[in-house]
Amino acid sequence: MIEQLQNLPGVGPKTAQRLALHILKQPENQVQALAKAIVEAKKQVGLCSVCFHLSAESVCEICRNQNRDNQSICVVADSRDVIALEKTREYGGKYHVLGGVISPMDGISPEQLNINPLVKRVSQQSVKEVILAISPSVEGETTTLYVGRLLKPFTKVTRIAFGLPMGGDLEYADEVTLARALEGRRELDT
Amino acid sequence: MIEQLQNLPGVGPKTAQRLALHILKQPENQVQALAKAIVEAKKQVGLCSVCFHLSAESVCEICRNQNRDNQSICVVADSRDVIALEKTREYGGKYHVLGGVISPMDGISPEQLNINPLVKRVSQQSVKEVILAISPSVEGETTTLYVGRLLKPFTKVTRIAFGLPMGGDLEYADEVTLARALEGRRELDT
Repeated sequence: MIEQLQNLPGVGPKTAQRLALHILKQPENQVQALAKAIVEAKKQVGLCSVCFHLSAESVCEICRNQNRDNQSICVVADSRDVIALEKTREYGGKYHVLGGVISPMDGISPEQLNINPLVKRVSQQSVKEVILAISPSVEGETTTLYVGRLLKPFTKVTRIAFGLPMGGDLEYADEVTLARALEGRRELDT
Repeated sequence: MIEQLQNLPGVGPKTAQRLALHILKQPENQVQALAKAIVEAKKQVGLCSVCFHLSAESVCEICRNQNRDNQSICVVADSRDVIALEKTREYGGKYHVLGGVISPMDGISPEQLNINPLVKRVSQQSVKEVILAISPSVEGETTTLYVGRLLKPFTKVTRIAFGLPMGGDLEYADEVTLARALEGRRELDT
């Protein structure tokens, strides 16, 4: 059991041992319930056939929601990013999860990501804006440019802003972030 | 000496003691040189009469530089911010150092900052753009809006971008930063 638990992210030998000892102390029915929950969740949760976000149904809750703007698609690398963006309560459109970023070093080519279904989706339905919300790593930038070029013939393509994080101090910002913050300056609306 | 050294920022009792012991080990002429350098620097370095950046001359090197764009003024809270922005090598205009941010809690009102000289500077010479580069704290935002409103009648006023810092991961960004990154999205130029 300790070996199995160690495969979980962020769980080292010590934590694995602590978790294992805790489980062994539990009554049998609770342990059964935990094991069952893990297996059931894995069985039930698949990917949304529209946006590839994690979903128990064939189409996820966000895609089914009629109150959300169908003409705006926010493209992210991972389901975790959908959850992070939903927490902001800023965005009322739909999503598309690529399932990673283009990374030749790790052998991840565009074909292995959900890029073709995205192009199909954007070209076949009326979409006013695609927002690329991909983290600004080297691979993320490559992916942003690649996807952006594919989608530009069909719709307006924007990307999220890069600059000073909130609460960030100018003095402690790295030079690239400061340069991007200067470059991305916008007219002040007062 | 230990007590005096402790007044320096980031120097606690232990560091002060270590510095003091180091100084006591030095030959007398070196100690004299250090003390003299401190007093001389304080005597010589004042504020630039144009932009209020630290300067040994009455007008600082940046203000005197004819190769820099006279029609662009970047407004910062502190001289340290000028140094941070200069390191990016992104900006070729002039600066204006406010000397702090508006903070009623700390008793800092607009009159105590170098805001009036800025308005005078912008209204009396031809300025194409004022870039407000003030850190996004509550006081910083207040200062940005206050200064922005004063300058808008005279020129175009922009502010630096807020969003994801470079190398920042979407998943780990705080919600306000993510919301600002979404809000500040820009059209992708490929």
